Amino acid sequence: MTPFEAINHAMSFISTGGFSTSDASLAHWPQPAIHWVSVVVMIVGSLPFTFYVATLRGNKSALLKDHQVRGFIGFLVITWLLFGTWLCINSDYSWWEAFRIVAVNVTSVVTTTGLALGDYTLWGSFSVLLFFYLTFVGGCSGSTAGGLKIFRFQVASSLLMGSLKQLIHPRAVIRKKYNGHPIDEDIARSLLTFSFFFTITIGGIALGLALIGLDWTTALSGAATAVCNVGPGLGTIIGPAGNFSTLPDAAKWLLTVGMLLGRLEILTVLVLLTPVFWRY
Amino acid sequence: MTPFEAINHAMSFISTGGFSTSDASLAHWPQPAIHWVSVVVMIVGSLPFTFYVATLRGNKSALLKDHQVRGFIGFLVITWLLFGTWLCINSDYSWWEAFRIVAVNVTSVVTTTGLALGDYTLWGSFSVLLFFYLTFVGGCSGSTAGGLKIFRFQVASSLLMGSLKQLIHPRAVIRKKYNGHPIDEDIARSLLTFSFFFTITIGGIALGLALIGLDWTTALSGAATAVCNVGPGLGTIIGPAGNFSTLPDAAKWLLTVGMLLGRLEILTVLVLLTPVFWRY
Repeated sequence: MTPFEAINHAMSFISTGGFSTSDASLAHWPQPAIHWVSVVVMIVGSLPFTFYVATLRGNKSALLKDHQVRGFIGFLVITWLLFGTWLCINSDYSWWEAFRIVAVNVTSVVTTTGLALGDYTLWGSFSVLLFFYLTFVGGCSGSTAGGLKIFRFQVASSLLMGSLKQLIHPRAVIRKKYNGHPIDEDIARSLLTFSFFFTITIGGIALGLALIGLDWTTALSGAATAVCNVGPGLGTIIGPAGNFSTLPDAAKWLLTVGMLLGRLEILTVLVLLTPVFWRY
Repeated sequence: MTPFEAINHAMSFISTGGFSTSDASLAHWPQPAIHWVSVVVMIVGSLPFTFYVATLRGNKSALLKDHQVRGFIGFLVITWLLFGTWLCINSDYSWWEAFRIVAVNVTSVVTTTGLALGDYTLWGSFSVLLFFYLTFVGGCSGSTAGGLKIFRFQVASSLLMGSLKQLIHPRAVIRKKYNGHPIDEDIARSLLTFSFFFTITIGGIALGLALIGLDWTTALSGAATAVCNVGPGLGTIIGPAGNFSTLPDAAKWLLTVGMLLGRLEILTVLVLLTPVFWRY
């Protein structure tokens, strides 16, 4: 990479933004070292930034002890390993090649950076569906990444496990914890609210896109990728090898609204639409 | 219809099951009267059955006063009107024809009966996406219908409106009600648990189907239609004009598991998988 390209990509990775200097995205540079550095910098951009301050102030283990950071790295590594092995079996790549390509693409989608290394929608429908799910994951809260964010999944799974235990022991008092702190009812309710509005927003935008005339794959994945701020969608038009330039103007406006809603975490915008807010 | 066909369809509608005596499903009988009777009987089969007992016992307004029944009928009528008008504009049907065809198909999918009148996936991607959403709705709780059920959406929207008000008035004590009863924290938490497990189950089964080799439309809509007990999926294979017979055996087993999980409302089955349950 030239210094110009390097600086551009470094800014793109840390901000989990996703602009590349090449239309082929990361596939323009075949060197494995560039790919691995990209993976590391994308992860650095999607960890909670407050922990960097804590680390600089001398609390060196803060980052590694955090429940969210551990879950995030663990999730990434397990996905790389399983998906990389699947790709190695179902393609001509060697294991190391498959692992590297999967690591770059998975990290890029999960951290909502959105750069691509090759067209992963050509690997079959398992890959298409998996990348659709990964679109929703997002990075850690307190970073530049979008999506639903790792901590929401962790809080939700903690609540779900608690509910299953409660079904077996109906009178037990089960204390649910996250990162050492108890999860109170307010957190459970705000998680429910956020997830429902998130789903409704994506569903509504997808329906709007379908009404404009986009096919159902483009509409659904386009809405998801816009609200989660990821970048590439699925299908032949807006997939990792395509782009949004050929979409009708109305679709672009709708996707713009979706990106703003996703970036502002929806509730802040929805409050503006309630009559109560304007009564002051 | 012959008496045999009539009895068969009556049983199929009341149980919101969905078997027809003809491969063309309801399109085999062109008479509008048959279609409207079908709509009425499907709705009868997806209202809460306890209210029929209450009505027989003399409480004649029980059915009409229930929040869930009102919401269900209201949702159906609004969907018929809007979608019927859309179809009338975007096809050669007259308004009444479009309204009738939409009414039969929408009612069939929402009540999880699953009979079809023509191939609604040919009406364009808006229709495809809308029927995908309708797959999840389901009938009233206390009926033979599957899906997420109307009352869950009503409780969720009541909670969501409450949360928006709470954002504006952080110190207000907002009492959320459903059907005249307050919604306590347990209901909010169980709704969260159910919705998440429902989503995870559909997502997991879809991923399994994609791994077996089904395309992403078939995998995603097949998983949804199985867990919601609806019937037809989307796409060329399992859409309303197709059927599941050509799917590989492994996919059929996976869909069978999905149908059972959906019918048993998931949690009862998941409890069996927790180690705590087997410790007795």
